[in-house]
Amino acid sequence: MKDRARRAIDDCKRIATMTEEPGRITRRFLTAPFHEVHAYLRGRMEALGMTTRVDAAGNLRGMWRPANAGDGQRLILGSHIDTVPNAGAYDGVLGVTVALEWVQLAQERSLPLVIEVIAFSEEEGVRFGVPFIGSRAVAGRFDRALLKLEDADGILLEDAIRAFGLDPAELEDAAIDANVAGFVEIHIEQGPVLEAEGLDVAAVTAIVGQSRLSLEFVGQANHAGTTPLHLRHDALAGAAEWIAAVEAIARNADGLIATVGKIAVEPNATNVVPGMAKVSLDARHARDVSRAVAVEDLVATGQAIAGRRGLTLNATRQLDQPAIPMDERLTALLVEAMEAAGMPRKRMASGAGHDAMVMAGKVPTAMLFLRSPRGVSHHPAEDVREEDVEAAMQVGLKFLERLAAELQQIR
Amino acid sequence: MKDRARRAIDDCKRIATMTEEPGRITRRFLTAPFHEVHAYLRGRMEALGMTTRVDAAGNLRGMWRPANAGDGQRLILGSHIDTVPNAGAYDGVLGVTVALEWVQLAQERSLPLVIEVIAFSEEEGVRFGVPFIGSRAVAGRFDRALLKLEDADGILLEDAIRAFGLDPAELEDAAIDANVAGFVEIHIEQGPVLEAEGLDVAAVTAIVGQSRLSLEFVGQANHAGTTPLHLRHDALAGAAEWIAAVEAIARNADGLIATVGKIAVEPNATNVVPGMAKVSLDARHARDVSRAVAVEDLVATGQAIAGRRGLTLNATRQLDQPAIPMDERLTALLVEAMEAAGMPRKRMASGAGHDAMVMAGKVPTAMLFLRSPRGVSHHPAEDVREEDVEAAMQVGLKFLERLAAELQQIR
Repeated sequence: MKDRARRAIDDCKRIATMTEEPGRITRRFLTAPFHEVHAYLRGRMEALGMTTRVDAAGNLRGMWRPANAGDGQRLILGSHIDTVPNAGAYDGVLGVTVALEWVQLAQERSLPLVIEVIAFSEEEGVRFGVPFIGSRAVAGRFDRALLKLEDADGILLEDAIRAFGLDPAELEDAAIDANVAGFVEIHIEQGPVLEAEGLDVAAVTAIVGQSRLSLEFVGQANHAGTTPLHLRHDALAGAAEWIAAVEAIARNADGLIATVGKIAVEPNATNVVPGMAKVSLDARHARDVSRAVAVEDLVATGQAIAGRRGLTLNATRQLDQPAIPMDERLTALLVEAMEAAGMPRKRMASGAGHDAMVMAGKVPTAMLFLRSPRGVSHHPAEDVREEDVEAAMQVGLKFLERLAAELQQIR
Repeated sequence: MKDRARRAIDDCKRIATMTEEPGRITRRFLTAPFHEVHAYLRGRMEALGMTTRVDAAGNLRGMWRPANAGDGQRLILGSHIDTVPNAGAYDGVLGVTVALEWVQLAQERSLPLVIEVIAFSEEEGVRFGVPFIGSRAVAGRFDRALLKLEDADGILLEDAIRAFGLDPAELEDAAIDANVAGFVEIHIEQGPVLEAEGLDVAAVTAIVGQSRLSLEFVGQANHAGTTPLHLRHDALAGAAEWIAAVEAIARNADGLIATVGKIAVEPNATNVVPGMAKVSLDARHARDVSRAVAVEDLVATGQAIAGRRGLTLNATRQLDQPAIPMDERLTALLVEAMEAAGMPRKRMASGAGHDAMVMAGKVPTAMLFLRSPRGVSHHPAEDVREEDVEAAMQVGLKFLERLAAELQQIR
């Protein structure tokens, strides 16, 4: 498995050289380096005996259909090949290169499994400001209104598709049929949990739901020298007390992740007591009801702090996105595979969004996370350990064997 | 005294119409409306029988020298006539118009007192970025290097002086001689203390000293969704804990005023744990040693918070300005005058800087504060109550009588 792991990593490094910006990894949806990536991965797929095509959304798709699988339900594996600006080499791409190794494992064991590998064209939402364009098309959830989206250069999405040599009229053909057993996305964790726990891999239970709010504490701007503390209505002092409270509440609430990432103060001068402080709240939880209760609690805490200080608090909701649970059966199969490969049955929620969110609306979906060294992602220092990729190979083999057996029983 | 109070206020309202910007009060040092203000105040001074001149720093000076005072030491009264942009009508100007009423009170009682009233030309530091230009010249502390200061239009200070019809070569002649008993500045409080205590006026004990620092909390930027609370090094959460601590410490420390007015966070995005938070500290106290100890304590508190959270803290000192005590004898005379006029012996520190800071380095100096309704200043809503100006007249009369008697005894 060591050679396979090394090859999957080398493929990522090779693909990292295919970039819009020399010296940095930046590969937005359907930009020139996409042709290179497609050519490279197509070569790898065809060497494995897979038939390939690029659908109208720019997804590269390779199909492995062994004779012993007949017209059985297929497993879809994959992840995305677009990146954020100045990205690392593994976010997305590793899920494709590991998937190709899983196909080879299935081939070597002559498993009766149809496998489609998809290199999704768009997940990050960088070029057109809307994420998951590739998986939307595959899941049959592509809204044609998106074709009129414009990128920073004023190019319409539909024209970008044409310029790449594809036909927007054929977008519906990208959608998968019903003969699918499930989708498994392999992805780096992009967080520090597995490293902190000393684990190689984890099965994802759900993509957390997310609320975003803006909270504006309004007080009274005053001269910092002439206004005694007890006569102030200091908006920043109120916001600071609330930020500390958010942290304390989130530390003590099981599964709640809450972040204040953004702050703006007025007039923002050293010698003026702040009259206004506007802060953001990002709250995530794998259970929607827990998130809703937590957000209520956090806003009420802000109101109480504001009231005690003679401030007013205006809270505005900007986003409420429900959690997406992964498929229980498929995830259980992954966990069994982990155990069979001699690893702990680690399950965890994903705090970030993935193509799996979109695919889960269409087919049973599971995700396998690999440890992210130092939790770093969306950064050139993003990395993956060879031992962990090897672990993903071992889990993959056990998973494919179990899934093939299960599908045989159904037939 | 009611008529005098009304006249002093009406003078301020009249002078408020002399502005660089129609509809807003903005009167920077030696701009066109200065000619109007000088003409108006010169008329008022000459009607009182005072001799007038404008010194080379642009200060308008009126001298009242009654025959019965001989060549005795003179009292200087005054404040500044420049303003911040979009100012109120009373900051500075009221100290000049009340001074003229005090001169008339002295005249009516035939007090043997030489009085010079100075309308200082520059206190706010708006035009050339350096405050107290007028009083520096009067106190003989004008550094000729200042002549090369440039305003926003690239005009040198020396050229602005010439353009106003004055000669920078004569700046030394603006300095006062040794025959001065003291300087008294009458000024609105610009804070809410007197209003909160229901008082008209107060004698100022000192202009507080001030330290300014910049504190940079450095942690680790991370994905807000994938980084659990216990694995974060959230720079903003650390800064927020410190802001709350600053407030708590300042509330419990006698005489300490501490403010965090400014904050900047990086990357300042809703979905990213802040990796850096930079905050300002403004700490003021009437006793320098208390301020120094408090600043040490606040920085040490920040270091402790940073250490506990795995953050680093970089603290940079930007300003350490010592407190300027007012003259004890002259201030005692003001307090006695307040008591003789039937008012409480209220003393308080000034949290803001004034021309009195500069004059105190040269001559015995005292200040009389008048209540600021709602504590508002540097704003069009800045106001003063007629009753409080009347109180300032009563205090003035008692003060002038006592000072005249004291100076008689010395002679």
